[in-house]
Amino acid sequence: MDDVDTIARAAAEAFEVTVRSTGAERASWLRAVAAALDSGTEELVPLAHEETGIPIDRLRGEVARTTGQLRMFADVVEEGSYLEVVIDHADPSATPPRPDLRRILRPVGPVAVFSASNFPFAFSVAGGDTASALAVGCTVVVKGHAGHPLLSRRTAQLVTEALREAGAPEGIFALVTGRDAGIALVEHPAITAASFTGSLAGGRALADRAAARPTPIPFYGELGSINPVVVTAGADAARGEALATGLGTSFQLSAGQLCTKPGVVFVPHGSRLEAALPAAVGDEAHRLLTDAITSGFSSGVAAALAIDGVEVIAGDPASHTAPVVLATDAATLSEHAETLLAEVFGPFTLLVRYTEPAEVIAAFEHLEGSLTATLHAEEGEDTAELLARMESLAGRLLFAGWPTGVAVTWSQHHGGPWPATNTQHTSVGATASRRFQRPIVYQDAPQHVLPEPLLEHNPLGIPRRVDGVRA
Amino acid sequence: MDDVDTIARAAAEAFEVTVRSTGAERASWLRAVAAALDSGTEELVPLAHEETGIPIDRLRGEVARTTGQLRMFADVVEEGSYLEVVIDHADPSATPPRPDLRRILRPVGPVAVFSASNFPFAFSVAGGDTASALAVGCTVVVKGHAGHPLLSRRTAQLVTEALREAGAPEGIFALVTGRDAGIALVEHPAITAASFTGSLAGGRALADRAAARPTPIPFYGELGSINPVVVTAGADAARGEALATGLGTSFQLSAGQLCTKPGVVFVPHGSRLEAALPAAVGDEAHRLLTDAITSGFSSGVAAALAIDGVEVIAGDPASHTAPVVLATDAATLSEHAETLLAEVFGPFTLLVRYTEPAEVIAAFEHLEGSLTATLHAEEGEDTAELLARMESLAGRLLFAGWPTGVAVTWSQHHGGPWPATNTQHTSVGATASRRFQRPIVYQDAPQHVLPEPLLEHNPLGIPRRVDGVRA
Repeated sequence: MDDVDTIARAAAEAFEVTVRSTGAERASWLRAVAAALDSGTEELVPLAHEETGIPIDRLRGEVARTTGQLRMFADVVEEGSYLEVVIDHADPSATPPRPDLRRILRPVGPVAVFSASNFPFAFSVAGGDTASALAVGCTVVVKGHAGHPLLSRRTAQLVTEALREAGAPEGIFALVTGRDAGIALVEHPAITAASFTGSLAGGRALADRAAARPTPIPFYGELGSINPVVVTAGADAARGEALATGLGTSFQLSAGQLCTKPGVVFVPHGSRLEAALPAAVGDEAHRLLTDAITSGFSSGVAAALAIDGVEVIAGDPASHTAPVVLATDAATLSEHAETLLAEVFGPFTLLVRYTEPAEVIAAFEHLEGSLTATLHAEEGEDTAELLARMESLAGRLLFAGWPTGVAVTWSQHHGGPWPATNTQHTSVGATASRRFQRPIVYQDAPQHVLPEPLLEHNPLGIPRRVDGVRA
Repeated sequence: MDDVDTIARAAAEAFEVTVRSTGAERASWLRAVAAALDSGTEELVPLAHEETGIPIDRLRGEVARTTGQLRMFADVVEEGSYLEVVIDHADPSATPPRPDLRRILRPVGPVAVFSASNFPFAFSVAGGDTASALAVGCTVVVKGHAGHPLLSRRTAQLVTEALREAGAPEGIFALVTGRDAGIALVEHPAITAASFTGSLAGGRALADRAAARPTPIPFYGELGSINPVVVTAGADAARGEALATGLGTSFQLSAGQLCTKPGVVFVPHGSRLEAALPAAVGDEAHRLLTDAITSGFSSGVAAALAIDGVEVIAGDPASHTAPVVLATDAATLSEHAETLLAEVFGPFTLLVRYTEPAEVIAAFEHLEGSLTATLHAEEGEDTAELLARMESLAGRLLFAGWPTGVAVTWSQHHGGPWPATNTQHTSVGATASRRFQRPIVYQDAPQHVLPEPLLEHNPLGIPRRVDGVRA
């Protein structure tokens, strides 16, 4: 792994420059990368399509999302709140006397970004993790995903050129590939944090290595999510057919290869949703992203079907990559929770029939953490206890919607209790950058040594808390 | 460990109540605990003195600090920023249409708090970790320190009674003791986070267990710190004697048993500081906190003295627990970094003589992360490169001061690169509560299901970011 060593050292050297860069500089770097990707869309999208099989239109949308993300982080940096500046002036009259203290968030250092297979732009080489790490002044080494190697390489070239032309230091960004390189990266002394989107098994293995280092580093993993949906009797009676259409669209979106895919859906026995769902399920076989996903899909569906009390209600499991809907009841789910609540990537969802809401609450005891939990209910139905369970299990709680589709906003949170993520952080939205920052406080520092955002006269005009008051 | 199991389950049950409590309720609980400790001072302080040997006056001050902390977190909760509320209204015209998203930080669940030996109040049963966890709606199980068992038990009784009388649920707070109980606690499925202040070895062992759980949990460890100090030639020439007095006070404070004790001090060869320091060093043997600290002190000093080029400049190492100052030069430090830069708890510090500032910078390559780094320099001296090194190593950077004494304020940061802490979080100051919160975002939620801080009309009048703008 000489290559990884050289690259990681270069990232550490570049960090000596980026740690001193201004927010304005970094915002211009991010916008340069966004512009380069926008210009490269017509070249990149066909490459991505060829390697992943993802439809051209979705890929085009994903490039726009990716460049939108880069520009959002440029805006976030310029706004300045992300530095979380807090200033307390000295108080010599306090017991004991209080010094002048000025707190700011600083970049952690070189970051390892493990890219995902299912978003070859938005969660890959120039995706959200890269954007949020560069935004705060970190340098980045991406471990490219084997599912789209040529796209990864070409994207990395465009990013590298754009950063160079924008004046960023050499070594600020690099790409490595291969499983061994990924392991070497997370264990390299120069790497100060790692982020990962992918499978529970792969993520856990890397997280364990990050924790076992002589100098442990934070590992931000987005690992697996079943995304439970609950449809109440009232909601089913009011709009069962529309819910069937919505669910059909959501679980088949991107051939079901989304971390927010609704994987288990609680519906009343004899629901209109269940009756209407088969009409919303396609019969075409999909090309899935990787061989591992293809075989995992087949074996996951087969394992569920092997359980007594699980039946097919739409699709043909023998076709292997065409959409499939299975159904069971709450008691069977509870009895075979480990099999039936394992995440199955691909166009599959499981309906779970219930009679009393109490059955849903009991079944929830078997669910692990998820990125999302969704409730379809009508006004006047008592859902308080159910909602309390859903809140304890998920990072995003949806009402009358579907979990696929993650808006990139100031407010977004894309994370949740284990195994959705292994930390309290998000990988989408403005606060994603906090993963790559650490606080530092300056005590009684002369003005001339302070970082600009901490200067008394606030030359950048950024939001700060001063003597306890937000200003 | 039936006992731990029962207690942890009770904490989980109580969490069902505290997770729904209001900030006003929790503020009143914290103030009730503070009042109970204040009332109990005259009973608690002699008990603490008996068990720890810490002087009465310092203990009295520590109780005041502890109740001040509890009240600060009550203020923080009432102010509301700690919830980090972000609201983005729906935008149907966006591509794709953007839902209504409302983000808030929620309590993680039952928290395990491992208390420290050296602050029997401020970092113990009712210390900062307990206060910051209760503040945000978590329940707490404290693992008491074996160095002050009776004080721990009596404090826990007062806390439990105060919480009960203030209307907090049974099980919100409990104490367990013993090493095995601590391990059982960090591995118990009901525990969702743990915080620890203590030795590197003990903390690392617990951190490894937290990471190896089937469901890993965050472990917030404050583990070890050498707290480097650099005195420039200019500063020594200008005020070497005053610096000797300041250093003498700082490293002997609380018999050197502070995590912010200055452990290594870079001084110019032939410094006025070194000449004046012996007069500032006491000759009385101290009673140290525990047998382990006492033997660690002796063996740490002996190991340093066994190195060629290390000499005694104050104190008598043979006395075992009286203050000792050793001195060496930068080259010897670099050669024997592992021994000479190991943290030695107790009244000991090491002077490192240098001729050129470049020697200090070279020696810094051997330093690990610290809670603090301190610079004594004069205006006009070029310290930019040195400061950059210090920033990369520490969580608090001091100018013309001494690192002992940690103000409890909005701005404070008590943490640093490994092994100072193992996360980017602080255990002192207003932001300490964030360790025990996780974000959740509500998508398109009807108003009647939202937590009060997310309601459209902001009934609590708390700070929020709405559509990107701080309000």
